[in-house]
Amino acid sequence: MQTFQITPIHNETLQAALVQRINQKTKPLGALGRLESLAMQLGLVQQTEHPVLQQPAMLVFAGDHGIVAEGVSPYPQAVTAQMVLNFLNGGAAINVFARQHGFDLHVVDSGVNAVLQPHPMLIDAKLGMGTANFLQQPAMTTAQCAEAIRTGAEIARDVVMQGTNVLALGEMGIGNTSSASCLMSVLCGQPMHQCVGRGTGLSDKGLQHKLSVLTSALQHHHVSGDDPLQVLAVFGGFEIAMMVGALLAAAEARATLLIDGFIATSALLVAAKLYPQVVDYCVFAHCSDESGHRMMLDHLKAEPLLHLALRLGEGTGAVLAYPLLQSSVAFLHEMASFDSAGVSGQIQ
Amino acid sequence: MQTFQITPIHNETLQAALVQRINQKTKPLGALGRLESLAMQLGLVQQTEHPVLQQPAMLVFAGDHGIVAEGVSPYPQAVTAQMVLNFLNGGAAINVFARQHGFDLHVVDSGVNAVLQPHPMLIDAKLGMGTANFLQQPAMTTAQCAEAIRTGAEIARDVVMQGTNVLALGEMGIGNTSSASCLMSVLCGQPMHQCVGRGTGLSDKGLQHKLSVLTSALQHHHVSGDDPLQVLAVFGGFEIAMMVGALLAAAEARATLLIDGFIATSALLVAAKLYPQVVDYCVFAHCSDESGHRMMLDHLKAEPLLHLALRLGEGTGAVLAYPLLQSSVAFLHEMASFDSAGVSGQIQ
Repeated sequence: MQTFQITPIHNETLQAALVQRINQKTKPLGALGRLESLAMQLGLVQQTEHPVLQQPAMLVFAGDHGIVAEGVSPYPQAVTAQMVLNFLNGGAAINVFARQHGFDLHVVDSGVNAVLQPHPMLIDAKLGMGTANFLQQPAMTTAQCAEAIRTGAEIARDVVMQGTNVLALGEMGIGNTSSASCLMSVLCGQPMHQCVGRGTGLSDKGLQHKLSVLTSALQHHHVSGDDPLQVLAVFGGFEIAMMVGALLAAAEARATLLIDGFIATSALLVAAKLYPQVVDYCVFAHCSDESGHRMMLDHLKAEPLLHLALRLGEGTGAVLAYPLLQSSVAFLHEMASFDSAGVSGQIQ
Repeated sequence: MQTFQITPIHNETLQAALVQRINQKTKPLGALGRLESLAMQLGLVQQTEHPVLQQPAMLVFAGDHGIVAEGVSPYPQAVTAQMVLNFLNGGAAINVFARQHGFDLHVVDSGVNAVLQPHPMLIDAKLGMGTANFLQQPAMTTAQCAEAIRTGAEIARDVVMQGTNVLALGEMGIGNTSSASCLMSVLCGQPMHQCVGRGTGLSDKGLQHKLSVLTSALQHHHVSGDDPLQVLAVFGGFEIAMMVGALLAAAEARATLLIDGFIATSALLVAAKLYPQVVDYCVFAHCSDESGHRMMLDHLKAEPLLHLALRLGEGTGAVLAYPLLQSSVAFLHEMASFDSAGVSGQIQ
């Protein structure tokens, strides 16, 4: 696999300067809570006391999954392609929220099981008509996996080159919670029943079946969390592998990464196993209602901004959190200081 | 006290129609979590399947408190007036976030202990140079309390008349967490130590002192939670009493109320004791870091949207939650349905 140069964001001098600026604002110390730590992080990511957010962009990676042949999703595989068309027509939730918050939205065909017509919003990066069924064989070859990472990295680099410094990743792929659950189980060292959830809405019976399929798959393959690329090749999806590359390349370019839900975080698990410092660049947008996401976030020591019981994917949670990033930058730039406003400080 | 006609929002037919609209959107059932219940509430408040948000407005009520003579705040009383000037100059956190989200911002002088010069953003409704010290006597007379409610109601009515259908209330008043703690203790039936917090940043010693002062005050007065107006007169502030009136008048006019933190919720405790159905109109913006707020929210069976460890007041939390209201309305209006987008439904 190609390598990435990801710089840790730690910088004691800058951190002290940011603390100073934040504490001089006309408010009790620490009273803006998470917005203060967010302002600090954005400053450190951008290596400046004056962080700015430029051209936020959302990349939605779409791919199909061989594992759906085992009946792990309540929706037919055709929905992946149908939803891609819905994205291109502007009718999905991610379109609505991306418009609301001024995100450039691109949809990446990472490996949808349908021939998609060219469209200005669509990036054609198809690696196949979906992955293989990982109950029987690895979802992709090692070469495909490396190619997916390389492609995802290239797409993210292009977006950053065009002026974006906040990149959010979303996904669409019927069956992809199954991939994410397996990645989580191996990379977080958790038993499968902690990692499996209802996805798009499985019944109790469907959930039991999914657990049994994924438990078998895990037993079938002999993978170790110490080899994240192998884990990704065996259980991943084309869209998830591309997200791994996109995360690493965007962090290399010092963009802020907005992390969505269960699937996006599973890609980050892989990326962080390869380059732990990638997490410095991540703002965790929300805690999904998909069972397992909370534990994934804990594993990454992540504190998500929103808790809205979302479980839609597409990157929706990431975009919904964006106004909070804007607020954190805005208070840093626009609030008066105690001195400038003539407000008295503490007396006790 | 004047009476208010607040209609419960329950409407079975409309609710069924809204459920139907929400469930036909191209997403798994319930996958937008809290945004779905929010869309439902906004529809019921506005009595329509097509809720819209118009001219959001923020009223920041400011007042001083006699109880600060007992050393319950780490900041001097002068900060109330200084912060009002900061609001008028546009340099406070609430200015920043109100600008970000397009709120009309008005500051109400409910009873600041300073003579304030006229300003286009300032509404002069001064009821005195601050309340009396409620360790010794009621904070205000019954007549003052009724006048404050009447005035707050009038101000809110004016704002709604000008086209606002989302009203957020904020406050500024050194010492007002002491009032809010006493209101909470009596109206929620909680022992004082559960209701007292650090406010703007008391030390451990300061916190102990505040607890002891407020415990004495509670023992000094014989008030019952069954007489919320008396509780408000004894322990309230002019700004809190005006917020009670503003909440009731705005709900009467079927505006959506955005509820901020500890102080704003204490005003709602009074309002809800008088007219329980006012809570139907409330969107609880956030859970404050001020100790006690979580329990207040539980008492009201409220699920706040944000958990950001804010404890600034001014209405900041309320305004920060506004984009989520916009998102809930936007998905309802703009998302395609399964039929219109040609997306398959569930197969299991």
